[in-house]
Amino acid sequence: MSKPLEINSQRLWGHLHEMAEIGATPKGGVCRLALSEEDKRGRDLFASWCSDLGLHLEVDSLGNMFARRKGKNPNAPAVLMSSHLDSQPTGGKYDGVLGVLAGLEVMEILNEQGIETDVSVDIASWTNEEGARFAPAMLASGAYAGVFTEDFAQSRLDKNGVSFEEALTSIGYKGDVSLGRRKYKACFELHIEQGPVLENNGLPIGIVTGVQGIRWYDLVIKGRETHAGPCPMNLRVDPVLQMLPLLTEIFELANTFGPHARVTMGSWEMLPGVRNTVPGEARISIDLRHPGTQSLEAMDRKLKDLVVKHNQVAEAKAGLTEIWYAPPVHFDADCIQAVREAVKTFSYPSMEVVSGAGHDSVYLASVHPATMIFIPCKDGLSHNELESVTESDVRMGANVLLHSVLQMAGVASQSKDLL
Amino acid sequence: MSKPLEINSQRLWGHLHEMAEIGATPKGGVCRLALSEEDKRGRDLFASWCSDLGLHLEVDSLGNMFARRKGKNPNAPAVLMSSHLDSQPTGGKYDGVLGVLAGLEVMEILNEQGIETDVSVDIASWTNEEGARFAPAMLASGAYAGVFTEDFAQSRLDKNGVSFEEALTSIGYKGDVSLGRRKYKACFELHIEQGPVLENNGLPIGIVTGVQGIRWYDLVIKGRETHAGPCPMNLRVDPVLQMLPLLTEIFELANTFGPHARVTMGSWEMLPGVRNTVPGEARISIDLRHPGTQSLEAMDRKLKDLVVKHNQVAEAKAGLTEIWYAPPVHFDADCIQAVREAVKTFSYPSMEVVSGAGHDSVYLASVHPATMIFIPCKDGLSHNELESVTESDVRMGANVLLHSVLQMAGVASQSKDLL
Repeated sequence: MSKPLEINSQRLWGHLHEMAEIGATPKGGVCRLALSEEDKRGRDLFASWCSDLGLHLEVDSLGNMFARRKGKNPNAPAVLMSSHLDSQPTGGKYDGVLGVLAGLEVMEILNEQGIETDVSVDIASWTNEEGARFAPAMLASGAYAGVFTEDFAQSRLDKNGVSFEEALTSIGYKGDVSLGRRKYKACFELHIEQGPVLENNGLPIGIVTGVQGIRWYDLVIKGRETHAGPCPMNLRVDPVLQMLPLLTEIFELANTFGPHARVTMGSWEMLPGVRNTVPGEARISIDLRHPGTQSLEAMDRKLKDLVVKHNQVAEAKAGLTEIWYAPPVHFDADCIQAVREAVKTFSYPSMEVVSGAGHDSVYLASVHPATMIFIPCKDGLSHNELESVTESDVRMGANVLLHSVLQMAGVASQSKDLL
Repeated sequence: MSKPLEINSQRLWGHLHEMAEIGATPKGGVCRLALSEEDKRGRDLFASWCSDLGLHLEVDSLGNMFARRKGKNPNAPAVLMSSHLDSQPTGGKYDGVLGVLAGLEVMEILNEQGIETDVSVDIASWTNEEGARFAPAMLASGAYAGVFTEDFAQSRLDKNGVSFEEALTSIGYKGDVSLGRRKYKACFELHIEQGPVLENNGLPIGIVTGVQGIRWYDLVIKGRETHAGPCPMNLRVDPVLQMLPLLTEIFELANTFGPHARVTMGSWEMLPGVRNTVPGEARISIDLRHPGTQSLEAMDRKLKDLVVKHNQVAEAKAGLTEIWYAPPVHFDADCIQAVREAVKTFSYPSMEVVSGAGHDSVYLASVHPATMIFIPCKDGLSHNELESVTESDVRMGANVLLHSVLQMAGVASQSKDLL
C-alpha cells in the first residue's frame, strides 16, 4: 500500500502565521474582533487565497463566506469544511483560523494532485463565532441554522451601539447571496480542543462524538444582613456559613455523574459585600454540563433535590432559577466514522472526546450531518494570547480533515490512482 | 428606704422625638449627616436646651460640644456623659442621640431637685461619629484622644470634595476652644445595643465591660482559570471547590472560641466572575472578633494554621494578608462598678455585655476612665430607619446613667437628703 496523501504542513503553518499578523498583539495573540477593520483584512487575505486556488467565493447577507471547489456532480449535496476567522479581544492564533485555513490547504493539495471529487467541496468561514463583539456567540451559524432570525442577527449591537449590519456594511462584507440553507452531505470542523484532555493523554487527535449539554442556574441564598460585631453567631442567619454544605454537595454531582460531568460556579455576588457586615444574600451561578441527555436531566433533578433538602434544615433559604438549557449534541455517525477511518489511514493515536465548548458545528449539526476533529493546544489554554499548538499536531489534524473529506466527497474514478 | 431619684422619661422621650424631626425621613428614620445643614439645626436645638438649663457650653475646633454643670469643686476632674448627634444617611432616631439627650435629662433633673454635685458634670456631643460623610468613623473623639492629628481630621473630604474644616466652618461650629484633653474622672455613654442580645434575653440593661477586638484579613485562593466546559474536573484547580473545607474550618473558630467569638466573611470577589469560567482567584474578607486579647490572638494563630494546613493538601493555594487590628477594649473597673450599683439601686434585670461595634467611648477609654450602658433596640436593628426602642427601656437606661453619674460625681453634703 502506497503512502497516503498528505497535506503540506509547512505551507499551512505559513498561512496560519501570515493570518496571525493581522491584529497581532504584543503578547503573541491576535485581536480580530468580528466585523472590525482587522476582520476585514483577514477576510480579504482569505478571499485572495481562495481566488489564487480558483475557488468560487460567495458571501451571504450575514457575511458568511463560502468558497467552493466544484466536484464532478456539482448539483449533488457537497462536503463542507468550516470554522471562523474572528477572535476574542485577547485571543489566540489558532482558535477558528485553523479550521478555515486547513480547509484551504485541503483545497490546495487537491489542486496540486489534480484530484477531482465526486461532489463539490466547500470552505465556510462563519461571521462572529466568538460573540466577543456582538452577543450571542455563534450568531451567524445560528442564523444560518434558523436558530436566530436574520433580523435578530443584523440588529445586534456592540458596546458602542454599532449594529451588526452597520459594521458588516462598513467593511464591505454584506454579501449579495441571501442567507439560507445549502445542501451538504457532511460537514467537518477541525479545531483546537480548548481543553487539556488530549495533551494530558498524549494524543494528537480527538474524534469528537458530540458536544456537552449545558444547564445554567442562578442560586440565591437569603440570610439576614447584620453587623459583624454585635450579633452573636447563634442569632445570625449567615448565608455564607449556611451555604457551604450545599455547595459541597452540588460539587459532588460531578463525582456522581462520572468523568464527563462538569460543575462550575463562576459568578458570585455577596450583598451588600461589606467587610464588617454579614451578607444578607449570596448569588452564585451554577453551570452543569454532561454529554448525555439523561445524565444531564438526572443532574438537574439531583440539584433541585439538594436545594429542597437544604431548605428543610437551613434558615438561610436557597432559591434556584433556571437560566438556560442547551441540550447535548450528538454528531452524525457517518461523519464520525469517516473521521475514524481517516485516523486509521495514518494510524494516528487518538481518542473519542466530547466538546465542552460551543462551536459553529453545534448549530450546523441541527441541519446537516456534521462532526469535528480536535487537536491539542498547550496547557489546554484558549481565548488567551498564549494559545499554542505544534506544527506536527496541525499536520495530523489537517491530514485527518483531508481524508475525512475525501471519504465523504468521494473521488472521481479517474482520480483514484492519484491518491 | 425612700424611692430612688428618677429621670422624667416623658420629657426625655419628647426631646428625642423633637430632635428626630430634624432630618426626618419618610420611613421614620433620620438623615443628619455630620456637619450638614441638618446637623447644624440639631446642634442649635441642643445648644438652646443647654442654655435653658444654664449649662456652660464650649465648642472646640473640631466642633465637639461640651456643656458643663458646675460642681462644688469646679477644678476637680469632672464626670462626662457623651455620645453624638450625627446619623447615618438612612439612620435611626436613637443611635447617639439617646446618649446626648439622656445626659441633658440628667442635668435637668439635677436642676429640678437642686442637687449640687461634688465635681462638675459635662455632656459632650462628638462630631462625625458615624463616619458616613467623613471617613473614618469616630473621627473627632479619635482626634480628641490623640489617635488622629487635628490636621488629619480637618482635611478629611466628603464624596463631593468638601473638607471637614470647610463644612464645619460653613455651619458655624468651628469653636474657639482648642482641641485638647480635659480632666475627667469618669465617662459614661448610654447607647442602644445595635445588636439582638439584650432583646433576645429579655433584659432592659446591658452593663458594658468592653469592646470586642477586631482582626481583619484578606484571604486569596488562587486556582487556574479555565473554561467551564472542556476542562474535566480532575484537571481543574478550582479555587471555589477547594476552598469550601477551609472556609468551613474558619467558621468553626467561632465554636472553638466560645459565645463571644465572631467570624464574618462579608466581602467576596471571584475573578474573572464569569458564568462559564472556572474562577482563577477567589478573594474573601475575614473579620474575626473577640473581647479577650488572648482569645483573639489564639484565633489569629489558629486561622494561620488552617491556611498552612490547607496549602499542604490543596492545589489552589491560599494566601492570608492582615489588614487591620483593633485590640479589645476593657472598660474602667470603677466606672463599670458604678453602673452595676446604679442597676442594683433599681433592681433592673441586666447582664454584662461586650460591645461588638465601635463607639466614641472606645477612644475615650484610652485617655479617661470610661464605660457604656446599653439598652435593647428592636430586632437588634440599627443604622436603619426602622431602628426602634421603648420608652420604658429609655427610662431605665437614663436612670442608670443618672445614678452612675451621681456615684462618680459625688453629691455635696447639703444635697444628700434630696436624693
